Amino acid sequence: MNPTDIQALLNRVRGGLMSVDEAMLLLGDSSAFERDFAHVDTDRPRRTGQPEAIFGEGKTAEDIIAILRRLHQSDQDGLVTRLDTDKAAHIQDVLPGCEWHQRARVLRYPAPSPRPDRAVRGRIAIVCAGTSDLPVAEEAAVIAEAYGNPVDRYWDVGVSGIHRIMGHAPALQSASAIIVVAGMEGALASVVTGLVSAPVIAVPTSIGYGASFGGISALLGMLNSCAAGVSVVNIDNGFGAAVMADRVNRRMGDT
Amino acid sequence: MNPTDIQALLNRVRGGLMSVDEAMLLLGDSSAFERDFAHVDTDRPRRTGQPEAIFGEGKTAEDIIAILRRLHQSDQDGLVTRLDTDKAAHIQDVLPGCEWHQRARVLRYPAPSPRPDRAVRGRIAIVCAGTSDLPVAEEAAVIAEAYGNPVDRYWDVGVSGIHRIMGHAPALQSASAIIVVAGMEGALASVVTGLVSAPVIAVPTSIGYGASFGGISALLGMLNSCAAGVSVVNIDNGFGAAVMADRVNRRMGDT
Amino acid sequence: MNPTDIQALLNRVRGGLMSVDEAMLLLGDSSAFERDFAHVDTDRPRRTGQPEAIFGEGKTAEDIIAILRRLHQSDQDGLVTRLDTDKAAHIQDVLPGCEWHQRARVLRYPAPSPRPDRAVRGRIAIVCAGTSDLPVAEEAAVIAEAYGNPVDRYWDVGVSGIHRIMGHAPALQSASAIIVVAGMEGALASVVTGLVSAPVIAVPTSIGYGASFGGISALLGMLNSCAAGVSVVNIDNGFGAAVMADRVNRRMGDT
Amino acid sequence: MNPTDIQALLNRVRGGLMSVDEAMLLLGDSSAFERDFAHVDTDRPRRTGQPEAIFGEGKTAEDIIAILRRLHQSDQDGLVTRLDTDKAAHIQDVLPGCEWHQRARVLRYPAPSPRPDRAVRGRIAIVCAGTSDLPVAEEAAVIAEAYGNPVDRYWDVGVSGIHRIMGHAPALQSASAIIVVAGMEGALASVVTGLVSAPVIAVPTSIGYGASFGGISALLGMLNSCAAGVSVVNIDNGFGAAVMADRVNRRMGDT
Amino acid sequence: MNPTDIQALLNRVRGGLMSVDEAMLLLGDSSAFERDFAHVDTDRPRRTGQPEAIFGEGKTAEDIIAILRRLHQSDQDGLVTRLDTDKAAHIQDVLPGCEWHQRARVLRYPAPSPRPDRAVRGRIAIVCAGTSDLPVAEEAAVIAEAYGNPVDRYWDVGVSGIHRIMGHAPALQSASAIIVVAGMEGALASVVTGLVSAPVIAVPTSIGYGASFGGISALLGMLNSCAAGVSVVNIDNGFGAAVMADRVNRRMGDT
Amino acid sequence: MNPTDIQALLNRVRGGLMSVDEAMLLLGDSSAFERDFAHVDTDRPRRTGQPEAIFGEGKTAEDIIAILRRLHQSDQDGLVTRLDTDKAAHIQDVLPGCEWHQRARVLRYPAPSPRPDRAVRGRIAIVCAGTSDLPVAEEAAVIAEAYGNPVDRYWDVGVSGIHRIMGHAPALQSASAIIVVAGMEGALASVVTGLVSAPVIAVPTSIGYGASFGGISALLGMLNSCAAGVSVVNIDNGFGAAVMADRVNRRMGDT
Amino acid sequence: MNPTDIQALLNRVRGGLMSVDEAMLLLGDSSAFERDFAHVDTDRPRRTGQPEAIFGEGKTAEDIIAILRRLHQSDQDGLVTRLDTDKAAHIQDVLPGCEWHQRARVLRYPAPSPRPDRAVRGRIAIVCAGTSDLPVAEEAAVIAEAYGNPVDRYWDVGVSGIHRIMGHAPALQSASAIIVVAGMEGALASVVTGLVSAPVIAVPTSIGYGASFGGISALLGMLNSCAAGVSVVNIDNGFGAAVMADRVNRRMGDT
Amino acid sequence: MNPTDIQALLNRVRGGLMSVDEAMLLLGDSSAFERDFAHVDTDRPRRTGQPEAIFGEGKTAEDIIAILRRLHQSDQDGLVTRLDTDKAAHIQDVLPGCEWHQRARVLRYPAPSPRPDRAVRGRIAIVCAGTSDLPVAEEAAVIAEAYGNPVDRYWDVGVSGIHRIMGHAPALQSASAIIVVAGMEGALASVVTGLVSAPVIAVPTSIGYGASFGGISALLGMLNSCAAGVSVVNIDNGFGAAVMADRVNRRMGDT
Repeated sequence: MNPTDIQALLNRVRGGLMSVDEAMLLLGDSSAFERDFAHVDTDRPRRTGQPEAIFGEGKTAEDIIAILRRLHQSDQDGLVTRLDTDKAAHIQDVLPGCEWHQRARVLRYPAPSPRPDRAVRGRIAIVCAGTSDLPVAEEAAVIAEAYGNPVDRYWDVGVSGIHRIMGHAPALQSASAIIVVAGMEGALASVVTGLVSAPVIAVPTSIGYGASFGGISALLGMLNSCAAGVSVVNIDNGFGAAVMADRVNRRMGDT
Repeated sequence: MNPTDIQALLNRVRGGLMSVDEAMLLLGDSSAFERDFAHVDTDRPRRTGQPEAIFGEGKTAEDIIAILRRLHQSDQDGLVTRLDTDKAAHIQDVLPGCEWHQRARVLRYPAPSPRPDRAVRGRIAIVCAGTSDLPVAEEAAVIAEAYGNPVDRYWDVGVSGIHRIMGHAPALQSASAIIVVAGMEGALASVVTGLVSAPVIAVPTSIGYGASFGGISALLGMLNSCAAGVSVVNIDNGFGAAVMADRVNRRMGDT
Repeated sequence: MNPTDIQALLNRVRGGLMSVDEAMLLLGDSSAFERDFAHVDTDRPRRTGQPEAIFGEGKTAEDIIAILRRLHQSDQDGLVTRLDTDKAAHIQDVLPGCEWHQRARVLRYPAPSPRPDRAVRGRIAIVCAGTSDLPVAEEAAVIAEAYGNPVDRYWDVGVSGIHRIMGHAPALQSASAIIVVAGMEGALASVVTGLVSAPVIAVPTSIGYGASFGGISALLGMLNSCAAGVSVVNIDNGFGAAVMADRVNRRMGDT
Repeated sequence: MNPTDIQALLNRVRGGLMSVDEAMLLLGDSSAFERDFAHVDTDRPRRTGQPEAIFGEGKTAEDIIAILRRLHQSDQDGLVTRLDTDKAAHIQDVLPGCEWHQRARVLRYPAPSPRPDRAVRGRIAIVCAGTSDLPVAEEAAVIAEAYGNPVDRYWDVGVSGIHRIMGHAPALQSASAIIVVAGMEGALASVVTGLVSAPVIAVPTSIGYGASFGGISALLGMLNSCAAGVSVVNIDNGFGAAVMADRVNRRMGDT
Repeated sequence: MNPTDIQALLNRVRGGLMSVDEAMLLLGDSSAFERDFAHVDTDRPRRTGQPEAIFGEGKTAEDIIAILRRLHQSDQDGLVTRLDTDKAAHIQDVLPGCEWHQRARVLRYPAPSPRPDRAVRGRIAIVCAGTSDLPVAEEAAVIAEAYGNPVDRYWDVGVSGIHRIMGHAPALQSASAIIVVAGMEGALASVVTGLVSAPVIAVPTSIGYGASFGGISALLGMLNSCAAGVSVVNIDNGFGAAVMADRVNRRMGDT
Repeated sequence: MNPTDIQALLNRVRGGLMSVDEAMLLLGDSSAFERDFAHVDTDRPRRTGQPEAIFGEGKTAEDIIAILRRLHQSDQDGLVTRLDTDKAAHIQDVLPGCEWHQRARVLRYPAPSPRPDRAVRGRIAIVCAGTSDLPVAEEAAVIAEAYGNPVDRYWDVGVSGIHRIMGHAPALQSASAIIVVAGMEGALASVVTGLVSAPVIAVPTSIGYGASFGGISALLGMLNSCAAGVSVVNIDNGFGAAVMADRVNRRMGDT
Repeated sequence: MNPTDIQALLNRVRGGLMSVDEAMLLLGDSSAFERDFAHVDTDRPRRTGQPEAIFGEGKTAEDIIAILRRLHQSDQDGLVTRLDTDKAAHIQDVLPGCEWHQRARVLRYPAPSPRPDRAVRGRIAIVCAGTSDLPVAEEAAVIAEAYGNPVDRYWDVGVSGIHRIMGHAPALQSASAIIVVAGMEGALASVVTGLVSAPVIAVPTSIGYGASFGGISALLGMLNSCAAGVSVVNIDNGFGAAVMADRVNRRMGDT
Repeated sequence: MNPTDIQALLNRVRGGLMSVDEAMLLLGDSSAFERDFAHVDTDRPRRTGQPEAIFGEGKTAEDIIAILRRLHQSDQDGLVTRLDTDKAAHIQDVLPGCEWHQRARVLRYPAPSPRPDRAVRGRIAIVCAGTSDLPVAEEAAVIAEAYGNPVDRYWDVGVSGIHRIMGHAPALQSASAIIVVAGMEGALASVVTGLVSAPVIAVPTSIGYGASFGGISALLGMLNSCAAGVSVVNIDNGFGAAVMADRVNRRMGDT
């Protein structure tokens, strides 16, 4: 926060237009931050294996910057999902160390200390039905990579041309976890699950129109898959699929 | 209606337990029948190409027998769908000329005059995902055959083992219309439609549990197919799919 | 892509603002295109009888141009549906050979080689309930024509004035396939199906308000039609109806 | 209640198996009845023009008998809807003055004093799409007649054979109110409303299967009718339609 | 259409940017209009008692003007519903004879010949729950008045302060039809129906938030009213309620 | 468990038809019970103020008896809800100290030690719309009384005759909490909440048919009440409403 | 309203562009206001204990100002909820005595006479799952404080880090009522209700995406809580929760 | 099939009451079996790591026996899920080698050759919220064990008493995969996922009533979990969860 902004803020406080707590929050005082606004769960990496991520939609750039700074102070990675380009640009102006992944809509603010290399045993395969599903698939890919997993991408291999996915079956068979991203009827999840022995995490997307009902058709298709060995995350939840896949792969790496 | 039944009926009328109109209906007086109960659409075969069929669910055996007799008098085939075994047995007792198709739950009462052979150009292929979907697929098959179409059956070829349907692609390619019957996520419709150039009629079934919601998941999956060239009929509506396929095939036969 | 654009692109690559793969995609390098972004299904016309079409909604003009060029290189027709006026204008600026159908929101980029005349036996009738349903009906009409079918249009013949459609019954009877487009309660599909022997493809539209729920009322009405011989495509899916009708008609033309 | 029953009841009270209030209720003591169980709205006929009717589903025969007796004591007609055959037989055994309408599932217990003839100006037409919808249509008809309205019945005139309803248009035009009863897609309501100037009351029925969802498809179809001049009651609510039509017709008779 | 516009139009035709049919439509050639765009149902007033009304939402001002002119040529009233202020202003500029009802969002273009006074026997009462429901209630009121009915308005009398509606019971009792407009839980319809003997037409509105689901809660509440004598139109359909009430009232005036 | 049963059980264990753990569970060994089947939360009364209650639906009489015995051993009251008559009779045979509330479908097994009298400040009023809602209302009443609250019952006061509830307003005003039980449209909750200043707990019931969707219409009506001061529990959840009301009333008694 | 506005208004009246009633409404004439637009329920504070609040969404700033002035004239507090920043600023310009709570989106216009201090016995605790739920939680807090209740805030204590809420259990135990605000799956309500004996009022929020369906997942989660002692208000209805909590707390203060 | 049955079968064939194909199917001729009824996917164990399982619901005992025999002939394990007690007893009579797991409703027919011991690295933990959810949890446990995984059971640890699950956190942390089974609001999945770093597979159950809608509330709660690291299978799909967990665990064992 630059001097002009601080001066304006203090004037608003003096004029009764802003409470002291709100001002402290914006000024980054961490005790007020903890008490009034957000309990940043600094214990989480130890407990669940993954740092907290920030859902960017519906948060202001200022809120996000405040939380990123707080994570940075705890020497943790900061990851923001579902960010739009304008807010990303604004955050990068303030925190130049951030990396911005446009198509995935993910911003990463690396922790100050370099993380030790992680011994990972397996690879995560991400399979995407159509080009419109790519933002969700890329979100999964970027998050999985940020957590230290090697990722293989299989784009635009939907079932309307079934030969496209058939050719990749041997490669998919060797992944430690497979994420399948598809909208519309979501049939790709069933086909892939029937081809391999790896655990499959299905991500329905909101791609479609009419009776796709914002992703419900794909969600139901995946939940009702005639092939067993697949489980499902929320519509468009590339992030959640990546965390699940990371947990699976991390188990293998815990040797 | 045999003399004992008639006597019982008249006693019920005299005792005020049955109205005159209901009695006339049961006795088969066609004018009362027409006026009070059912406008049998005897013009339909000429107009739409298919005789009227009777939806057996929720009708009494007596109602069905009355309508079958009425169609027989007009020298039309009588077809009853969604019939249970008990009612079928009762109807066959009264009208011994009926044919009963157990698995399809379809009963047929052939018209008195033999129908002229029909010049049909093409074959109808019926593809069925799982063994639990068979009653619906058989309903479609029996109706299509009753309308004079040659039918090819492909049973238990769901997408969880994708190689099962792949091997049939050349044969399916030559059909004049393909009916795909599937429950759960209904993905088979998309896969078949992407493999062939024939028009595909998809029938979602109510097979499944939990979030399949009595066939909604399959219905939505088929409506949202990523492959174009498929249209959908109501859940479990094997009859409707057969009529649609017959209309397609009949066009080809109108040479 | 003109030199200025390329220069700008390269500067963005050098500055780390664009990945090499994205740059290659925009530059039209087909191997990167195939690997990272879109498996254009160049085998589809041979397999299913129809070229792939591009769903324009949610794609950028740049993405669409890239795919159109790729199809053009394979000597295939390019069809884009659900395009808005601004993107269409931009695409026409870059690819002046495109035809733009405003009301249908369809853009066509003809293949370089003229297509051989197609021997088509029948006509496709398109029946539209109300003036608000016209964009969907026109989408069906333009696509069907693009595939080489003669099309007859019957506009604004909804059931609230039943005489309007009754007068067209003889003409409809002679079509090889009928597409019925209607919103609100979608009753027109049932009335038409009961009048003719041709196969009917019903397209529910999202026209309506309140309890029409974006087309669900019309969709359910059509799926539950009391007349058999009709099947249904997704809400507002004029394109899908045209492909289905083309498959029906093409069968007849395969003499 | 016969002596044996009363004795058994008192024993249950003495044994603590039944509360005094429940016993008084069963014994028909009206003050307990009023206080603990049911506020019979004896003022309703004066206020709303129609006597209270009893929804028979889910009530025991004993409960119904108690309420019928209470109405009888107030010299009011008793009407019971949605009654099954067994309970009706039991009630008729206890209250022999009851009339039983089998198909309509309605039982009527006439008031002790004859009702004065009512000056009714108009007739109520009831139009029914299919034979399976008849119980609902008959419920409407029997209730409307019980309230003193002349009723004309038009049965089995669904839109799959549109000529059936077209021929009745002139007769329908002269009704003071029209009730349209239809299941499946409910399209008959739109067609009738477009043909006449009388107010139309639409009753969706639960007839159908699959995506008819127990009458939702017909309900939505009727609510979204493209023809204005129609309003809708609950699924299978023949009773409610009759009350609405009676209110309309009664206004005309209030000269 | 002024000369400049016509010139521009012809240039677009010559340049291939507009089809001849579209041009004829815009130029108001009625035969093209009839054939290609809209079957204006000029017989409707005779058949159903009400002129056709134009649903303004989603139509361009130009489309509306064309239809209004066509009705005017047939000496019929033109009524447009669901119009926004900007389009209304534009239409009034072109057709200065129009009346604009802001709150009701209804525009009326009176027929050239004055309509004969109508002998109406009864009054229509319109009851509105909250101030946010007023646009729908006013739509009903303006349409009912446009059809020649005297209208009484009862605004802001929702059930959270039940005394507000109780005081109006005697006045409501004398109406020939009552329209009840309410959002949220829609309870006002039940209360009013229990108070009076007039037929009640309930209009659920989309007012509410959260689990009101755009009017579904009010719609279901009204369909499931514990009071009989009420029927329901679509969500926000003030127009439909007015047509229904007019049909009821007109019957009474047909003396 | 009698000797014959035990012998049979042991034979099944020896024959491998039953696991040791299952046998121990049936034999009532509490350590196995705790480990394998049910963590009876004996700390709950201290923590939340109410003992645990047993949901009887879907549990066998044997399961229920086992849990009741376990609670009895901890000197706690046992309450079973949603019990049917047959299972209740069976449990009373085994545990004769149980009280059975037929209409409420609640069984109570009092703790061995008498509970100290509770100092309760206020009364709980329970208001019930129709006679069919009584089982839910009685469940709430019996549970509230079992927890030591005085209860006032107001039965059959639905809004279709609004005067019935209006007369009770002063009495309701003095309650410390009011439970409103209603099905169909659930409007009674709004009317009561607007009349009083006490907190209102609304219980939607599954009473209704057609578009009441098993209580959804009442649930939505109550959630969307235009009157503030009401909150809602699950459909038919008389038990939950009683616990909520007890918590409110207990606060007042904590002096 | 300033002179320029009044002049413009009168010109519109003279030109027929505005009705006299609408003009009187805008001019603030209270009798017209009462008659035509809004029955302000000035008796409500006496009857229900809380003044009427104004739902700001969808109302113009002018409408809100008119109602606030009317309440002010009756010496009542004016509370506006769901207000956006722009309208709030405009209202503060016209009525400078207003207080604006930005995060809660609540504006308060205090009554002219100071309210007597209220004897309140208990405190209201408000527990909020995530930072995105804060606007709803703050709405509840500000309203509860405006009604004179002391409020304790517990922010960002969602169940993904269960230790955060566990530490607050003793403090929560002493509240007279607890409001739990949560989106997504809404699990926090179950956890809190199981920890304490105070009555819990749950507020589902529309926070979430995909299958959260605008708050339906949280709403259903709270309605189906496995812990008893919780009831639920509408999605995002912080205001309703505060009124319910105030009613509970007020009971305790009525000593 | 015993001689009497075969004789009866042949008589039905001779009498035209059964087709030859159906007879062959019942006689167990494997070629007809393969062609007409069921493509048993004997390649599946090699491809996906798990043998095919038979969904018992809706299949006759005879169908199940035929498939079990077919698997036995291929030296594969046969697993039947969702079997009821009567059919299980019948199957055990015919195939005495079957094991029957009553609570899990799972029947297993071991392959003739003993399976080699499997090197499994990790354990699967199964956590179950309430006693009513046990059948689903046991299905998961029995299947996971049948596939060779060691399983730890944590029963009756729902969130209404949060301390029950908290004590198990360290043990859960060491599992290679955790299956969480819960009905009602399904909150247990969120709490567990926040406590551990293992991948969590959530199974919603249909336990609940009212607005739980047969498991939808739990399903939505789990899909919308505020904790990442969890994915979801279909309602009541204990089998699917076990297959997913086995795939995860098997990856770890592939050393």
